[in-house]
Amino acid sequence: MLPTIAWRGRSVVMIDQRKLPGQETYVRCRTYIQVAQAIEKMVVRGAPAIGIAAAYGLVLGAMALSAETGRSLDRDFEKVYKRLERTRPTARNLFWALERMKATYERTRPHGLRAIRTALLEEAKAIEREDAETNRAIGRHGQALLRDGWTVLTHCNAGALATAEYGTALGVIRAAVAEGKTIRVYAGETRPFLQGARLTVWELDRDGIPVVLITDSMAGWFMRRGEVDVVVVGADRIARNGDTANKIGTYSLAVLAKENGVPFYVAAPTSTIDLSLADGGGIPIEERGPDEVREVGGRLITLPYVEVRNPAFDVTPAAYITAIVTERGVHRPPFEKSLGVPHK
Amino acid sequence: MLPTIAWRGRSVVMIDQRKLPGQETYVRCRTYIQVAQAIEKMVVRGAPAIGIAAAYGLVLGAMALSAETGRSLDRDFEKVYKRLERTRPTARNLFWALERMKATYERTRPHGLRAIRTALLEEAKAIEREDAETNRAIGRHGQALLRDGWTVLTHCNAGALATAEYGTALGVIRAAVAEGKTIRVYAGETRPFLQGARLTVWELDRDGIPVVLITDSMAGWFMRRGEVDVVVVGADRIARNGDTANKIGTYSLAVLAKENGVPFYVAAPTSTIDLSLADGGGIPIEERGPDEVREVGGRLITLPYVEVRNPAFDVTPAAYITAIVTERGVHRPPFEKSLGVPHK
Repeated sequence: MLPTIAWRGRSVVMIDQRKLPGQETYVRCRTYIQVAQAIEKMVVRGAPAIGIAAAYGLVLGAMALSAETGRSLDRDFEKVYKRLERTRPTARNLFWALERMKATYERTRPHGLRAIRTALLEEAKAIEREDAETNRAIGRHGQALLRDGWTVLTHCNAGALATAEYGTALGVIRAAVAEGKTIRVYAGETRPFLQGARLTVWELDRDGIPVVLITDSMAGWFMRRGEVDVVVVGADRIARNGDTANKIGTYSLAVLAKENGVPFYVAAPTSTIDLSLADGGGIPIEERGPDEVREVGGRLITLPYVEVRNPAFDVTPAAYITAIVTERGVHRPPFEKSLGVPHK
Repeated sequence: MLPTIAWRGRSVVMIDQRKLPGQETYVRCRTYIQVAQAIEKMVVRGAPAIGIAAAYGLVLGAMALSAETGRSLDRDFEKVYKRLERTRPTARNLFWALERMKATYERTRPHGLRAIRTALLEEAKAIEREDAETNRAIGRHGQALLRDGWTVLTHCNAGALATAEYGTALGVIRAAVAEGKTIRVYAGETRPFLQGARLTVWELDRDGIPVVLITDSMAGWFMRRGEVDVVVVGADRIARNGDTANKIGTYSLAVLAKENGVPFYVAAPTSTIDLSLADGGGIPIEERGPDEVREVGGRLITLPYVEVRNPAFDVTPAAYITAIVTERGVHRPPFEKSLGVPHK
């Protein structure tokens, strides 16, 4: 198993995903502010992993609280909560995890700070453990969609590094391989942050699953040539009607898949679903800094002052999605109906 | 004017397009083999520019010939010709220019080597000069398609650096700006070789034309959001029915443009049209080495041994193309009819 995030003696340890695959180094966060910064700087990324990191961040925040009870405790807790909440806007799992942690706080609040701390740590661990179980379930349901001998195109990294372990999209692939199917993966490099080239390639290579690296611009052409049998991606937020925010470039892949008759699957836990949003129009899309586009690995590839656009996500309309795979099963359109199961 | 290629005292000087925009350095080729290698290594790239470079390469080859007449002259000429011909397979202009040069050789052959050399140099200069004129004509015809205030998406570099001067797709943009229209350009970075980030950004910035750099994966999303009014790209080879080979990623842009009601224009000289091919199925697609994808600017971005696919071009079916702009005018579907004018 990949050590994406781990709670170790009053601190959160994360593999530094900015440095992979060249360097396998770890970042230890001892304060909630360090966790918030690690999320912002993408030391840790991937919707479920961000949720887990934020949950542990809240534990670290609670450990530093001093007021035992009352309004000042609430105020201090709220400050920690707000800081973690404003790290990244798009992934639903961040808010989902923080809300779960807040409910735990409110439930244990009458019992004092010590009880709160214990309960919060237990809850964060539960979120992590459940995410691992969830991914196995997604894999079980999703692998049935993949046939022996297929080439699967994926984008970004929806793998062990994006979750507690195993992964969502890569979990589906891992489960298919575990079933004895021969699967080959085309990994889009996923500019600007190169999660595909750096993380997906590294993960699949470690597991001995054949992976071929392509640039994002090649995916459509391989679909047209009949070299891709299916597209499987993760998700950052899914609206009630199935509209799905995911890493920038996903929308283009979905359009190209539909045009070429290639099935397009989204694999994500129900914690990614935002039932408060009727459709994808309400999903906030993070726009990140220009240097991610101007540079690769800290080296300038263009003029240093050129204007840049850098939306980190896009929204794929439900009409382009063949099915959404969650831990509950394979949801087919109309998604409003098939997804509409309340989740905790 | 940008000094893409220049004949200078028995040598061909080219700006090194691998180094831009960080370094503005020049490569001087004194032999046809150096020219062939410069084409292969993409010191010079862009279909029309490759044709011009190859023409001058043939001049250098002819200068080194020793046999005055007869079969051994033909054999030596053929050796030079073949070497230049096998540099890159996709761009029609390479073969078009070489064929023009060969016709010149055959015409002047009875007059001896000195006459051949003079005629070949004149012909290469004519190819270069005509390409510059051709681009101005493409610009005149094409600019009428762009409205004041529009945002134009382009891919790769179909600019001065890809031609003798002015450019094809960028020529259309330059002509629109010269007409007083306010035009903003979204430049796709164009992995793996980054012609958009490195060359198009540099060219447009020098001309004071507003340019915004995006990754290739973002283009579809901006079309969906209504932020792109038109797509204009160049071409490497156009079949009789209008199917167009161009830089990898072009096909995806064309599908996304059609899906979003965005007009999609190809700008290219008639020397890019291959009337011998009924459709795009016959266009040879170059697959380049894996390190172009594994590395950026010589720095590894993934595992050093990961398998890679690296097709340098794709073919956009004519059905996705709104019009093709050549020096003869704006050609609309059916292209078989509108393109079917023999060119020299």
